[in-house]
Amino acid sequence: MLNKNVETFIACDCDYDNADAIIFGSPFDSTTSFRPGTRFGPSAVRSESYGIETYSPYQDKDLEDICVMDSGDIELRIGDTNAVLAQIEERTRQILNDGKCPVMIGGEHLVTLGAFRAVAQKYPDVHIVHFDAHADLREDYLGVKLSHACVLRRCWDIVGDGKIHQFGIRSGEKAEFAFAKLHTDFHPFDLKNVEDSLKFLAESQAPVYFTLDMDVLDPSIFPGTGTPEAGGVMFEELRTAVTFVCSKLNIVGCDINELSPHYDASGVSTAVVCKILREILLALH
Amino acid sequence: MLNKNVETFIACDCDYDNADAIIFGSPFDSTTSFRPGTRFGPSAVRSESYGIETYSPYQDKDLEDICVMDSGDIELRIGDTNAVLAQIEERTRQILNDGKCPVMIGGEHLVTLGAFRAVAQKYPDVHIVHFDAHADLREDYLGVKLSHACVLRRCWDIVGDGKIHQFGIRSGEKAEFAFAKLHTDFHPFDLKNVEDSLKFLAESQAPVYFTLDMDVLDPSIFPGTGTPEAGGVMFEELRTAVTFVCSKLNIVGCDINELSPHYDASGVSTAVVCKILREILLALH
Amino acid sequence: MLNKNVETFIACDCDYDNADAIIFGSPFDSTTSFRPGTRFGPSAVRSESYGIETYSPYQDKDLEDICVMDSGDIELRIGDTNAVLAQIEERTRQILNDGKCPVMIGGEHLVTLGAFRAVAQKYPDVHIVHFDAHADLREDYLGVKLSHACVLRRCWDIVGDGKIHQFGIRSGEKAEFAFAKLHTDFHPFDLKNVEDSLKFLAESQAPVYFTLDMDVLDPSIFPGTGTPEAGGVMFEELRTAVTFVCSKLNIVGCDINELSPHYDASGVSTAVVCKILREILLALH
Amino acid sequence: MLNKNVETFIACDCDYDNADAIIFGSPFDSTTSFRPGTRFGPSAVRSESYGIETYSPYQDKDLEDICVMDSGDIELRIGDTNAVLAQIEERTRQILNDGKCPVMIGGEHLVTLGAFRAVAQKYPDVHIVHFDAHADLREDYLGVKLSHACVLRRCWDIVGDGKIHQFGIRSGEKAEFAFAKLHTDFHPFDLKNVEDSLKFLAESQAPVYFTLDMDVLDPSIFPGTGTPEAGGVMFEELRTAVTFVCSKLNIVGCDINELSPHYDASGVSTAVVCKILREILLALH
Amino acid sequence: MLNKNVETFIACDCDYDNADAIIFGSPFDSTTSFRPGTRFGPSAVRSESYGIETYSPYQDKDLEDICVMDSGDIELRIGDTNAVLAQIEERTRQILNDGKCPVMIGGEHLVTLGAFRAVAQKYPDVHIVHFDAHADLREDYLGVKLSHACVLRRCWDIVGDGKIHQFGIRSGEKAEFAFAKLHTDFHPFDLKNVEDSLKFLAESQAPVYFTLDMDVLDPSIFPGTGTPEAGGVMFEELRTAVTFVCSKLNIVGCDINELSPHYDASGVSTAVVCKILREILLALH
Amino acid sequence: MLNKNVETFIACDCDYDNADAIIFGSPFDSTTSFRPGTRFGPSAVRSESYGIETYSPYQDKDLEDICVMDSGDIELRIGDTNAVLAQIEERTRQILNDGKCPVMIGGEHLVTLGAFRAVAQKYPDVHIVHFDAHADLREDYLGVKLSHACVLRRCWDIVGDGKIHQFGIRSGEKAEFAFAKLHTDFHPFDLKNVEDSLKFLAESQAPVYFTLDMDVLDPSIFPGTGTPEAGGVMFEELRTAVTFVCSKLNIVGCDINELSPHYDASGVSTAVVCKILREILLALH
Repeated sequence: MLNKNVETFIACDCDYDNADAIIFGSPFDSTTSFRPGTRFGPSAVRSESYGIETYSPYQDKDLEDICVMDSGDIELRIGDTNAVLAQIEERTRQILNDGKCPVMIGGEHLVTLGAFRAVAQKYPDVHIVHFDAHADLREDYLGVKLSHACVLRRCWDIVGDGKIHQFGIRSGEKAEFAFAKLHTDFHPFDLKNVEDSLKFLAESQAPVYFTLDMDVLDPSIFPGTGTPEAGGVMFEELRTAVTFVCSKLNIVGCDINELSPHYDASGVSTAVVCKILREILLALH
Repeated sequence: MLNKNVETFIACDCDYDNADAIIFGSPFDSTTSFRPGTRFGPSAVRSESYGIETYSPYQDKDLEDICVMDSGDIELRIGDTNAVLAQIEERTRQILNDGKCPVMIGGEHLVTLGAFRAVAQKYPDVHIVHFDAHADLREDYLGVKLSHACVLRRCWDIVGDGKIHQFGIRSGEKAEFAFAKLHTDFHPFDLKNVEDSLKFLAESQAPVYFTLDMDVLDPSIFPGTGTPEAGGVMFEELRTAVTFVCSKLNIVGCDINELSPHYDASGVSTAVVCKILREILLALH
Repeated sequence: MLNKNVETFIACDCDYDNADAIIFGSPFDSTTSFRPGTRFGPSAVRSESYGIETYSPYQDKDLEDICVMDSGDIELRIGDTNAVLAQIEERTRQILNDGKCPVMIGGEHLVTLGAFRAVAQKYPDVHIVHFDAHADLREDYLGVKLSHACVLRRCWDIVGDGKIHQFGIRSGEKAEFAFAKLHTDFHPFDLKNVEDSLKFLAESQAPVYFTLDMDVLDPSIFPGTGTPEAGGVMFEELRTAVTFVCSKLNIVGCDINELSPHYDASGVSTAVVCKILREILLALH
Repeated sequence: MLNKNVETFIACDCDYDNADAIIFGSPFDSTTSFRPGTRFGPSAVRSESYGIETYSPYQDKDLEDICVMDSGDIELRIGDTNAVLAQIEERTRQILNDGKCPVMIGGEHLVTLGAFRAVAQKYPDVHIVHFDAHADLREDYLGVKLSHACVLRRCWDIVGDGKIHQFGIRSGEKAEFAFAKLHTDFHPFDLKNVEDSLKFLAESQAPVYFTLDMDVLDPSIFPGTGTPEAGGVMFEELRTAVTFVCSKLNIVGCDINELSPHYDASGVSTAVVCKILREILLALH
Repeated sequence: MLNKNVETFIACDCDYDNADAIIFGSPFDSTTSFRPGTRFGPSAVRSESYGIETYSPYQDKDLEDICVMDSGDIELRIGDTNAVLAQIEERTRQILNDGKCPVMIGGEHLVTLGAFRAVAQKYPDVHIVHFDAHADLREDYLGVKLSHACVLRRCWDIVGDGKIHQFGIRSGEKAEFAFAKLHTDFHPFDLKNVEDSLKFLAESQAPVYFTLDMDVLDPSIFPGTGTPEAGGVMFEELRTAVTFVCSKLNIVGCDINELSPHYDASGVSTAVVCKILREILLALH
Repeated sequence: MLNKNVETFIACDCDYDNADAIIFGSPFDSTTSFRPGTRFGPSAVRSESYGIETYSPYQDKDLEDICVMDSGDIELRIGDTNAVLAQIEERTRQILNDGKCPVMIGGEHLVTLGAFRAVAQKYPDVHIVHFDAHADLREDYLGVKLSHACVLRRCWDIVGDGKIHQFGIRSGEKAEFAFAKLHTDFHPFDLKNVEDSLKFLAESQAPVYFTLDMDVLDPSIFPGTGTPEAGGVMFEELRTAVTFVCSKLNIVGCDINELSPHYDASGVSTAVVCKILREILLALH
C-alpha cells in the first residue's frame, strides 16, 4: 500500500514522540520593508536538503543516527501580524511543553518574536545569542513596532539589559548602535569573540535561545537574502561559531531565518542554510 | 543649475496645479498569500515606461499633449495593514478634494480598498467596474478580512448589491461564484460583454471607479504576476475594453494593479502595463 | 501531537484504500538530448498547486468532493534507463492491481513507456490517445532505442497499427511523418478533430491510456519545456479536448509530462500544468 | 584526424562554392537606446538551432536537401558605428558579387543599413519588404542619425518614395506615422494584407530585400527583445507571410534581427527565430 | 500639494547651491565588446540604495549630516561616442566651475575619459588613482581608439608618464603589462600597497581624480559586471583603500563604474556599489 | 572566399597535426542525481572564453605562443551510459595514440571514467590527482555503479590502492570517508598539502592523470554547479595548486568538469573555468 507524499528536511523523519528536536517552518515576510521572499525559505530548505549528505565530516556525526522530526510549515494568517505571531508562539509552546527543542525555519526575522515569547515564558531567565548583519534594535520602523527591523528590541522589552549577546552586526542606524552599547552585549563586525564571550554560558548552562539571521554571512557566499550587506563573515567562521554555540550551550530553542531563495538562482544560499542546519541539529545532540 | 533627479511615468511631469490626473504608487504586498513582489510594480512601471512611445496610434493621441502628474510612491507603513489603507485613503482624498482624478499603481489588489473608501465617501452612488481573473469576493481568507482575496467583498460591504460590475473572472472558490450570482453584475471568463453591459453607465454618466487587476490577461502575455491563471483575455480584447471604459464612462478614480515584475525577467509584463496605462491616461482625456 | 510534513497536489490527500486515482511522480530526464530539467516537474507541480483553486468553474466540480491520493515520487535509479522503466512499470502495476487509476507526472516523455507496459499487460486491447508537439516515432535516436524521441514508436511495438491516436504534432523528421501516415491515426498541427475522431472510443468504452506532452501547447503559454516548438494550440483548445477525453472515454491510466519548470521563472508553465491536472482529475470522476 | 570545432546553423554546413545562400551574423547593438543584448542573437541562434528539426512539415522540405553555408559572425569594430556598417556592407557585397544570397542575422536593426547599401548598389531598383513593430522612420534619435530608430529612414534616403513596404507597425512617434502615410507603402498593426499588397512584386519579380524585425511578433511568443510591444501578430500569421515573401518574391538579400536572447531565459524566443529562419531558407529554395 | 516624484541616491537630496558634491549618472555601454549592460548601473544604484543605511559604523558618519545632490542621469546621444564624451565633459565642467566635486556613476569605463578631460583642463597637474582588474591601456581595441579597453591609455595621452597610479590589475594583453611597467605607477593583483604608495599624494595634497572600476573586486562578491575576472580583492580590502584615498587625498573628481546589474539577479553587486559609494561620499567630507 | 564558422576555446585553433594538446568536450549529465546541466559546460566555456585574455600575467605566458587544438564536442549517445563511456574512451585513445595530450571538458564527473580507461590502458602505472568537494567513492549510488558519485571508485577498481591522490574533499557519506582512509592518499578540506604530498611524483615523473572537479572551489566563487558545497577553497589556492600539478608533474591526460552554467546567470562560474583552463594549458607547455 502506498503512503501519502512526505517531505521533510533530509533524514528528519522521526515520529513526534521519539524526536527530541522538532523542526517547523514559519513562511512569513509581510513586514519586510525592502525585498520580500523569505516565505519561500522553509520549503526551499526542505527540497534542496537532498543535495547534501546526512554525514558531517566536521563533527563526524550523522543525521541518520539521531532523531529529529520535521513537522512542516504552520499555515499562517498572512496579513495579520499579531495573529501570525500568536500562531508561532502556540506551536513553540506545544513543543516546549512536550519537552522537545523547537527548531524554527523562517521567514523574516520577526518570526523570532513569536517563538521567543513562548520560550521566555517557560524560561524567564533565558539568554539570547544573536548572529546577524543588522542590529534589529529599532523602537519602531516607519511607525510600526512589530517589524523585522525591531525584533531584538521587542525581545529586549521582555528580557531587559545584559541578556542579549549580539555578534556580527555591521549595519544599522546611529541610534541602534548607541542603544546596543548601553543595553546589549555587543560584538560588531564578526564572530571572532563568540567562544570567549560566551564561555560563562557554557559553564553556567543557563538556558539559551539561539537566533541566526543568515545574512551575518558575507553576501559572496549567501546572496539569497532581502538585504545583502557586504563585509560579512565567511562560511568557516560561521560553522565554527554555530557548532560551539549549539554543542556547548544549553540551547532550549533556536531559529535560522532570512533565506530568500529566489534571489539566488544558483541555489548556493539554500545549500548553505541546509548545511548549517545539519550542523546545528548534529551539534544539539 | 542642475536639478534633483525626477523620475515619472513617461511624459507625466506636469505640475500639480495644472494636472487633471495624478498618478501615485502604492507598493504594498503584505497580504499576498502566494507569491509576493507587487511592491516592485510602481517603480518598474516608471523606469520601463521609457521603452514605449508617448503617442498612441490606436487613439491618435499623445501624452505630450495632455497634463498628468506622477507624484511618486506613498511611503507605506509596511507591516500594519490598517495603517497602510489609511495612508492610501488619505492620499486619494487629497487628490479628489483638489478636483483631480486619482490614478493609483499597485501593489496587490487590496490597495483598491484604501482608494475606494475615499471615492465612495465623495461619491456615495459610485459604481465599480472590475476586470480580474479572480473574484476576490471571499468573506475572509485564512481568517483575515483585509486580504487581497477579499477586496471586492469589502467594497461590496460599502456599496451593496448591483453596483459592482465584474468581467473576466475565471477563478475562485465555489462560494465566491455563488455570491457573485446573487450580489454582483457578473460576467465571467472574458470581456466580450463590457460595452453592452455598461452602456447604461455611459448614458447616465454615473460616477465610476475602475479597478484593473492585470491578471485578467492571459499569462502568455502577462506572466509577471503572483497567481498566473491560464485562460485569460488577449491584449487587444483588454485594450479595447479599457479604452471604452475610460473614454465613455465618468471615471472618478482608477487603479491598475498586481504587476509583479520580478516574475517576468523579459520585461514584457511591465511593458504591457505601461502601454495600458498610457491608453488609460489618453482615454481619460 | 504534530505530524510529519505531508506535501501533495492540492486536496489530493485521500488515503490509499479510499482513493480511486493515485498520483505519482517519475522525475526522470536522462535521455533528454537537448535541455534537461523535467525531473523537477513533479515537485514543482505539487508546491505550486497551492496557487490554484480546488474548484473548477469550467466543470463546476471541486477536488474537495472527490478522493485522490498523491503517493509522491518514485526514487528512481538515475543512470540506468532499463531499471528506471522497470520501477515505473512496477508502481503502475501495483495501482492497477488494486483497481485504481494511475496518474503519472513526468519527467521526460520516455516515462510513458514504463507505465504503458503495465497497462498494456492488463488491457491488451488498449488504445493510446497522444497529444504532443513531436511525433516521438523514431526507430532510434543517435543509436539509442529507449529515448524520449522514440517513446510512441516503442508503444507501437506493443500495440501495433491503428491503436495510437496522435494530435497536435507539428515537428519531427521526414521519416516520422511518413511512418505516422502508415501506422497511426494521425491528426497533425492541432486538436480540432479530437472529439470527432474519438467518438467511436466514447461509444465503445474501450480502455484508453492518455498521454499528454504539455509541449502540445504553444510556447507562449507553456515556455517551460525542453524543446519549445512555436505554432502550438492555446489553453482553451487543450482544456476542452482534455476534458472530453477524460470525461467521455474509458481512461485506465494517464500521464502528463515534459514540464521543465526552471525554464520558466515566471511560474506560468507550472501553473498551467496544475490547472490541466485539476481538470483531468475532475473529469475522470 | 580530428577537425577544429565547427558550429553552424543546423545543417548549413555546405562549402562556400556550392552554397547559394550564405548566412552571417552581425552582433551589433551599440545604438540601442533602451535595452541592449541583440549582439548575443547570432550565436544563440546557432547553438539553439539543434533543438529544431531540419524538416519542415509546413513546406514538406528539408534543410538536408538544400545547400546553405553559415560563415559565422563578422568581428565588428564595436564603438565605431560607421566602421561597423562598412564591415557589414563589405561582407554583403562579397556574397552578392559571388552570385549568392546574403542572409544576415542581427544584431539591432541598424545592421540592415550596412547590408542594404551593398544590395542597393547592385540593384538600384530594389524594393524593401519590412515587417516590424516599430516604424524606424525617425530623421534622428536624440540627435543621432545612425540609430536603430532611423534605419528605414536611412534606407528611404537611398530608395525614395514607394519602394518601402511596411507591415505590422504598431508603435512610433506621431511624426513617423505621418511620414509613413506620405512616403511608404504603409500597412500598420498586422500582416493580413501582405499577400494582396505584394502580388505585384510576385508578378514583376523585381528585386526585393526582406528585413524582418522579429518584434513584429506579439511579445507573448517573442519576449526576448529590447523593446517588447504588446499587440503583435501571432506565429502562424508571421510564418505564412514569411513563406509567401521568400518563396514568391525575388529575394536578393534578407535579414532577421532584434533577438535579444538574454531577456528570455526560457529560450522560446530563440527557438522561434530558429524556426522562422529555417522556413525562410527553405522558402528561398 | 504633491510634488513630482524625485528619486536620488539615498539621502542625497540637497539643493544644488548648498551641495558640495554632485552625483550624476552616465548610462553608456556602447563600446563594450563582450557583455553590455552597465547602462543600467546608475538607476539600479539609486533604487537599491534604499536597502542600505545612511549611517556608516566604519566611519561613524551619516549621509544625513552632509550635503550631496544627485542630479540624475545625462540623456546621452547613444550611438555617437564622441558626442557622448562631450556631454559628459560638459556636465563635469559645469560642476567643477561651480566649485563642487563631481561624482559620476557609470556606465562602462570609457565614461571616465569625458569627465577626466574637464578635470585635467582645470587641474593640469592632476594625478589619477585607478583601481581595476584590467589595465585598460591598449592603444586601440579592434581598431577603435575610444574604447573601454583603452580609457587609461587615452588619459595617459593627456597627463603622460608617472601621473597614473594603478592598483589591482590582474588581466590584460602582454603589451599592456609592458606599457604599464614603463609608463605608469603599476601595482598589479591587489590593493595592499595603496596607502604606502600614495602617502606622497596625501602629503602634497596634489589634485587627484579617482576612478574605481568595481571589477577590481573578486567576482565572488561582485559578479554583476561585464567581464568577471577571478582572483580579485575582497570587500574589506577595497573599503579600507577607498576610505584612505577619499579621506586623505585631495580628490577633485571621482567615478565608480562597470556595474552591470542584470548579471547579478541577487542584487548583491548593486548593494556593494551602494555601500562603497556611501563610504566614498562620507570620506570626501 | 568565406569559411564555415569555427568556434574554439580562445586561441586554440592549431591544426591537429601540429597541436600537442587536444581539447574535446563530453556534454553528458545523465547520471546526475540532483540537478543536471553540466552538458552545457563545454559550449559555455568556448563561447565565454572570449571574455578572458590569452596572456597570463601569473605565468607570463600566452596561448598565442603555444599550439593547442579544440576538436569540439563528441556527439554522445545520450541515454546509454555504457555507449557514452565507450565513445569518450575511443576519442581519448585516438589522441593518445597520436602522441598528444587529451584535455577533456565535462560534463558530469562520470566522463572521467571513459577517458581514464584509455589512459590506464596506455599507462598501466598511472597515478590520479583528484581535486573535488566530494569523495566520489561509493560502490554504487541508488543501485547504479556507473554514476558520477562512484567515478573515483571505478577508477580505483582499475588502479587499486595508493595511486589516487585526493584533495579538497569535504562531503560524502560515512562509508566513503572510511574507504578513503584505507585505500587512497586522502587530504580532505583543502589544497594546502598538494605540493608537499606530490613532490615524489614531480621527482619520479611517473605518468599522471589530473581530474579537476571545479566544485572543489568555494561556491561563493563557483556557484554554477549541480551540488554546491560550502567551505571550499578560494581561487588563488586552486590556481596555485593547478599550476604546480600541470607544470611539474608528467601529465598524460586531464579533465575539468562539473560546470553547470545555467545555475550561474552571472557567468562568473564559466569565466572561472575559462581562466583555470587557460592556466592549465599554459602550465602543460
